[in-house]
Amino acid sequence: MNALQPIGRIRTPFATIDECPRNVRALDPAPACAVEVFEPYRDGLHSLESFSHVILLYWLDRAEPPQMVFTPPFDAEPRGVFATRTPHRPNPIGLAVAALDGIEGGILRVRYLDCIDGTALLDIKPYLPSVDAVPDASMGWLRS
Amino acid sequence: MNALQPIGRIRTPFATIDECPRNVRALDPAPACAVEVFEPYRDGLHSLESFSHVILLYWLDRAEPPQMVFTPPFDAEPRGVFATRTPHRPNPIGLAVAALDGIEGGILRVRYLDCIDGTALLDIKPYLPSVDAVPDASMGWLRS
Repeated sequence: MNALQPIGRIRTPFATIDECPRNVRALDPAPACAVEVFEPYRDGLHSLESFSHVILLYWLDRAEPPQMVFTPPFDAEPRGVFATRTPHRPNPIGLAVAALDGIEGGILRVRYLDCIDGTALLDIKPYLPSVDAVPDASMGWLRS
Repeated sequence: MNALQPIGRIRTPFATIDECPRNVRALDPAPACAVEVFEPYRDGLHSLESFSHVILLYWLDRAEPPQMVFTPPFDAEPRGVFATRTPHRPNPIGLAVAALDGIEGGILRVRYLDCIDGTALLDIKPYLPSVDAVPDASMGWLRS
Protein backbone atom coordinates (compact mmCIF):
# COMPACT_ATOMS: atom_id res chain seq x y z
CA MET A 1 0.00 0.00 0.00
CA ASN A 2 1.60 3.20 -1.16
CA ALA A 3 1.84 6.32 0.95
CA LEU A 4 -0.73 9.03 0.57
CA GLN A 5 0.25 12.38 -0.87
CA PRO A 6 -1.63 15.63 -0.28
CA ILE A 7 -2.92 17.01 -3.58
CA GLY A 8 -4.23 20.24 -2.09
CA ARG A 9 -5.49 22.01 0.96
CA ILE A 10 -9.00 22.67 2.28
CA ARG A 11 -9.80 26.20 3.50
CA THR A 12 -12.62 26.65 5.98
CA PRO A 13 -13.49 29.33 8.55
CA PHE A 14 -12.85 26.80 11.33
CA ALA A 15 -9.45 27.33 12.93
CA THR A 16 -9.80 24.78 15.70
CA ILE A 17 -11.62 21.49 16.19
CA ASP A 18 -13.93 23.19 18.68
CA GLU A 19 -15.00 25.66 15.99
CA CYS A 20 -15.98 22.91 13.54
CA PRO A 21 -19.79 22.78 13.38
CA ARG A 22 -21.72 19.63 14.22
CA ASN A 23 -24.32 20.26 11.52
CA VAL A 24 -22.91 22.57 8.88
CA ARG A 25 -26.07 22.35 6.76
CA ALA A 26 -28.05 24.03 9.55
CA LEU A 27 -25.95 27.20 9.20
CA ASP A 28 -27.48 30.03 7.17
CA PRO A 29 -25.76 31.37 5.20
CA ALA A 30 -23.57 28.34 4.54
CA PRO A 31 -19.94 29.17 5.41
CA ALA A 32 -17.88 29.76 2.25
CA CYS A 33 -15.16 27.14 1.91
CA ALA A 34 -12.50 26.53 -0.70
CA VAL A 35 -10.36 23.70 -1.98
CA GLU A 36 -6.91 24.71 -3.21
CA VAL A 37 -5.49 22.12 -5.61
CA PHE A 38 -1.71 22.09 -5.83
CA GLU A 39 -0.25 23.05 -9.18
CA PRO A 40 0.85 19.58 -10.41
CA TYR A 41 -2.74 18.33 -10.09
CA ARG A 42 -4.67 21.29 -11.50
CA ASP A 43 -5.05 19.91 -15.01
CA GLY A 44 -7.01 17.09 -13.40
CA LEU A 45 -9.86 19.56 -12.74
CA HIS A 46 -10.69 19.78 -16.44
CA SER A 47 -14.48 19.45 -17.05
CA LEU A 48 -15.27 19.09 -13.34
CA GLU A 49 -17.06 22.45 -13.29
CA SER A 50 -20.15 20.97 -14.94
CA PHE A 51 -20.87 18.81 -11.89
CA SER A 52 -22.99 20.39 -9.16
CA HIS A 53 -21.48 18.35 -6.31
CA VAL A 54 -18.19 16.66 -5.50
CA ILE A 55 -17.02 14.06 -3.00
CA LEU A 56 -13.92 15.20 -1.15
CA LEU A 57 -11.58 12.87 0.69
CA TYR A 58 -9.13 14.37 3.17
CA TRP A 59 -6.72 13.39 5.90
CA LEU A 60 -7.89 13.96 9.47
CA ASP A 61 -4.47 14.75 10.89
CA ARG A 62 -5.76 15.63 14.35
CA ALA A 63 -7.43 12.26 14.78
CA GLU A 64 -6.64 10.40 17.98
CA PRO A 65 -6.11 6.65 18.27
CA PRO A 66 -9.51 5.07 17.61
CA GLN A 67 -11.70 3.29 20.11
CA MET A 68 -13.61 0.41 18.53
CA VAL A 69 -16.63 1.08 20.76
CA PHE A 70 -17.50 4.37 22.42
CA THR A 71 -20.50 6.46 23.41
CA PRO A 72 -20.86 9.34 20.93
CA PRO A 73 -21.79 12.86 22.05
CA PHE A 74 -25.55 13.30 22.35
CA ASP A 75 -26.05 9.55 22.56
CA ALA A 76 -26.77 7.28 25.50
CA GLU A 77 -25.58 3.99 23.99
CA PRO A 78 -22.14 2.74 23.06
CA ARG A 79 -21.63 2.43 19.27
CA GLY A 80 -19.03 0.85 17.06
CA VAL A 81 -16.62 3.26 15.38
CA PHE A 82 -17.83 2.13 11.93
CA ALA A 83 -21.43 3.03 12.86
CA THR A 84 -20.34 6.65 13.43
CA ARG A 85 -18.68 9.40 11.43
CA THR A 86 -16.16 10.23 14.16
CA PRO A 87 -12.75 11.40 12.87
CA HIS A 88 -11.04 9.00 15.28
CA ARG A 89 -10.92 5.97 12.96
CA PRO A 90 -8.35 3.26 12.12
CA ASN A 91 -7.66 5.06 8.81
CA PRO A 92 -8.64 8.69 9.50
CA ILE A 93 -9.90 9.58 6.04
CA GLY A 94 -12.62 12.21 6.07
CA LEU A 95 -15.38 12.33 3.46
CA ALA A 96 -17.72 15.16 2.56
CA VAL A 97 -20.28 15.69 -0.17
CA ALA A 98 -19.89 19.36 -1.09
CA ALA A 99 -21.81 21.70 -3.37
CA LEU A 100 -19.50 23.01 -6.09
CA ASP A 101 -20.08 26.70 -6.86
CA GLY A 102 -17.17 27.37 -9.19
CA ILE A 103 -13.55 26.67 -10.12
CA GLU A 104 -10.94 29.32 -10.86
CA GLY A 105 -7.15 29.12 -10.88
CA GLY A 106 -7.06 25.71 -9.25
CA ILE A 107 -9.41 26.77 -6.45
CA LEU A 108 -12.86 25.25 -5.97
CA ARG A 109 -15.51 27.30 -4.20
CA VAL A 110 -17.61 24.87 -2.17
CA ARG A 111 -20.19 24.67 0.59
CA TYR A 112 -20.90 22.21 3.42
CA LEU A 113 -17.44 21.40 4.70
CA ASP A 114 -17.02 21.08 8.43
CA CYS A 115 -13.33 20.20 8.71
CA ILE A 116 -10.54 22.31 10.15
CA ASP A 117 -8.81 24.98 8.05
CA GLY A 118 -5.69 23.64 6.31
CA THR A 119 -6.83 20.01 6.11
CA ALA A 120 -4.86 18.01 3.54
CA LEU A 121 -6.87 17.06 0.44
CA LEU A 122 -6.52 13.48 -0.83
CA ASP A 123 -9.04 13.18 -3.65
CA ILE A 124 -11.87 14.85 -5.53
CA LYS A 125 -14.51 12.65 -7.16
CA PRO A 126 -17.52 13.81 -9.17
CA TYR A 127 -20.78 13.11 -7.31
CA LEU A 128 -22.93 10.74 -9.36
CA PRO A 129 -26.51 10.58 -8.06
CA SER A 130 -27.10 7.32 -9.95
CA VAL A 131 -24.67 5.49 -7.64
CA ASP A 132 -24.05 7.87 -4.71
CA ALA A 133 -27.56 9.08 -3.82
CA VAL A 134 -29.79 6.81 -1.72
CA PRO A 135 -32.36 9.27 -0.36
CA ASP A 136 -34.44 6.57 1.33
CA ALA A 137 -31.53 4.88 3.13
CA SER A 138 -32.31 4.19 6.77
CA MET A 139 -30.10 5.91 9.30
CA GLY A 140 -30.01 3.15 11.88
CA TRP A 141 -29.51 4.13 15.48
CA LEU A 142 -29.47 7.82 14.54
CA ARG A 143 -33.21 7.58 13.98
CA SER A 144 -33.89 5.29 16.94
CA MET B 1 0.47 11.72 7.24
CA ASN B 2 0.38 8.26 8.73
CA ALA B 3 0.43 5.10 6.69
CA LEU B 4 -2.78 3.36 5.83
CA GLN B 5 -3.53 -0.03 7.29
CA PRO B 6 -5.92 -2.57 5.80
CA ILE B 7 -8.77 -3.28 8.22
CA GLY B 8 -10.32 -6.03 6.14
CA ARG B 9 -10.79 -7.51 2.72
CA ILE B 10 -13.51 -7.14 0.09
CA ARG B 11 -14.82 -10.29 -1.55
CA THR B 12 -16.44 -10.02 -4.97
CA PRO B 13 -17.03 -12.47 -7.84
CA PHE B 14 -14.60 -10.44 -9.99
CA ALA B 15 -11.19 -12.11 -10.15
CA THR B 16 -9.63 -9.75 -12.68
CA ILE B 17 -9.99 -6.11 -13.63
CA ASP B 18 -11.55 -7.17 -16.93
CA GLU B 19 -14.29 -9.01 -15.03
CA CYS B 20 -15.24 -5.94 -12.99
CA PRO B 21 -18.57 -4.64 -14.31
CA ARG B 22 -18.92 -1.11 -15.64
CA ASN B 23 -22.43 -0.72 -14.20
CA VAL B 24 -22.94 -3.17 -11.38
CA ARG B 25 -26.44 -1.85 -10.66
CA ALA B 26 -27.58 -3.01 -14.10
CA LEU B 27 -26.88 -6.65 -13.18
CA ASP B 28 -29.87 -8.73 -12.11
CA PRO B 29 -29.58 -10.38 -9.71
CA ALA B 30 -27.01 -8.14 -8.03
CA PRO B 31 -23.80 -10.13 -7.46
CA ALA B 32 -23.42 -11.11 -3.80
CA CYS B 33 -20.38 -9.44 -2.26
CA ALA B 34 -18.89 -9.53 1.21
CA VAL B 35 -16.67 -7.42 3.40
CA GLU B 36 -14.47 -9.36 5.81
CA VAL B 37 -13.38 -7.20 8.73
CA PHE B 38 -10.18 -8.32 10.43
CA GLU B 39 -10.52 -9.48 14.03
CA PRO B 40 -8.97 -6.43 15.81
CA TYR B 41 -11.58 -4.16 14.18
CA ARG B 42 -14.73 -6.28 14.53
CA ASP B 43 -15.98 -4.63 17.70
CA GLY B 44 -16.18 -1.45 15.64
CA LEU B 45 -19.16 -2.95 13.75
CA HIS B 46 -21.41 -2.66 16.82
CA SER B 47 -24.81 -1.13 15.93
CA LEU B 48 -23.93 -0.79 12.24
CA GLU B 49 -26.51 -3.43 11.26
CA SER B 50 -29.37 -0.96 11.67
CA PHE B 51 -28.13 1.12 8.72
CA SER B 52 -29.39 0.09 5.29
CA HIS B 53 -26.34 1.39 3.40
CA VAL B 54 -22.65 1.92 4.05
CA ILE B 55 -19.85 3.86 2.38
CA LEU B 56 -16.79 1.70 1.80
CA LEU B 57 -13.32 3.07 1.19
CA TYR B 58 -10.70 0.73 -0.22
CA TRP B 59 -7.24 0.73 -1.73
CA LEU B 60 -7.03 0.34 -5.50
CA ASP B 61 -3.76 -1.58 -5.51
CA ARG B 62 -3.81 -2.25 -9.27
CA ALA B 63 -4.03 1.45 -10.07
CA GLU B 64 -1.53 2.75 -12.58
CA PRO B 65 0.21 6.14 -12.42
CA PRO B 66 -2.50 8.72 -13.02
CA GLN B 67 -2.86 10.92 -16.08
CA MET B 68 -4.25 14.34 -15.17
CA VAL B 69 -6.19 14.49 -18.45
CA PHE B 70 -7.32 11.53 -20.51
CA THR B 71 -10.18 10.41 -22.74
CA PRO B 72 -12.36 7.95 -20.78
CA PRO B 73 -13.81 4.82 -22.40
CA PHE B 74 -17.09 5.56 -24.19
CA ASP B 75 -16.28 9.26 -24.32
CA ALA B 76 -15.05 11.44 -27.15
CA GLU B 77 -13.60 14.29 -25.09
CA PRO B 78 -10.58 14.47 -22.80
CA ARG B 79 -11.51 14.87 -19.12
CA GLY B 80 -9.64 15.70 -15.95
CA VAL B 81 -8.97 12.77 -13.63
CA PHE B 82 -11.01 14.46 -10.86
CA ALA B 83 -14.03 14.66 -13.18
CA THR B 84 -14.01 10.85 -13.51
CA ARG B 85 -14.19 7.85 -11.20
CA THR B 86 -11.21 6.12 -12.78
CA PRO B 87 -9.12 4.03 -10.34
CA HIS B 88 -5.95 5.62 -11.74
CA ARG B 89 -5.82 8.62 -9.34
CA PRO B 90 -3.08 10.43 -7.41
CA ASN B 91 -4.33 8.74 -4.21
CA PRO B 92 -6.03 5.56 -5.47
CA ILE B 93 -8.75 5.32 -2.83
CA GLY B 94 -11.91 3.67 -4.10
CA LEU B 95 -15.35 4.57 -2.80
CA ALA B 96 -18.62 2.67 -3.06
CA VAL B 97 -22.07 3.14 -1.60
CA ALA B 98 -23.23 -0.41 -0.84
CA ALA B 99 -26.52 -1.87 0.35
CA LEU B 100 -25.97 -3.66 3.67
CA ASP B 101 -27.93 -6.92 3.89
CA GLY B 102 -26.53 -8.32 7.12
CA ILE B 103 -23.54 -8.73 9.44
CA GLU B 104 -22.38 -12.00 10.95
CA GLY B 105 -19.05 -12.99 12.46
CA GLY B 106 -17.28 -9.87 11.25
CA ILE B 107 -18.54 -10.33 7.68
CA LEU B 108 -20.87 -7.85 5.99
CA ARG B 109 -23.12 -9.08 3.22
CA VAL B 110 -23.38 -6.26 0.68
CA ARG B 111 -24.50 -5.45 -2.84
CA TYR B 112 -23.24 -3.08 -5.56
CA LEU B 113 -19.49 -3.47 -5.33
CA ASP B 114 -17.56 -3.55 -8.58
CA CYS B 115 -13.98 -3.87 -7.33
CA ILE B 116 -11.67 -6.81 -7.70
CA ASP B 117 -11.80 -9.76 -5.28
CA GLY B 118 -9.38 -9.34 -2.38
CA THR B 119 -9.30 -5.54 -2.40
CA ALA B 120 -7.98 -4.08 0.87
CA LEU B 121 -10.63 -2.36 2.99
CA LEU B 122 -9.72 1.01 4.53
CA ASP B 123 -12.91 2.27 6.15
CA ILE B 124 -16.61 1.68 6.67
CA LYS B 125 -18.85 4.69 7.26
CA PRO B 126 -22.60 4.65 7.87
CA TYR B 127 -24.49 6.21 4.94
CA LEU B 128 -26.43 9.25 6.13
CA PRO B 129 -28.97 10.44 3.53
CA SER B 130 -29.21 13.82 5.25
CA VAL B 131 -25.64 14.65 4.22
CA ASP B 132 -24.69 12.01 1.62
CA ALA B 133 -27.76 11.90 -0.66
CA VAL B 134 -28.15 14.60 -3.32
CA PRO B 135 -30.62 12.97 -5.72
CA ASP B 136 -30.93 16.05 -7.93
CA ALA B 137 -27.19 16.65 -8.32
CA SER B 138 -26.22 17.31 -11.92
CA MET B 139 -23.85 14.83 -13.49
CA GLY B 140 -21.92 17.23 -15.65
CA TRP B 141 -20.39 15.90 -18.81
CA LEU B 142 -21.84 12.42 -18.18
CA ARG B 143 -25.25 13.82 -19.12
CA SER B 144 -24.05 15.99 -21.95
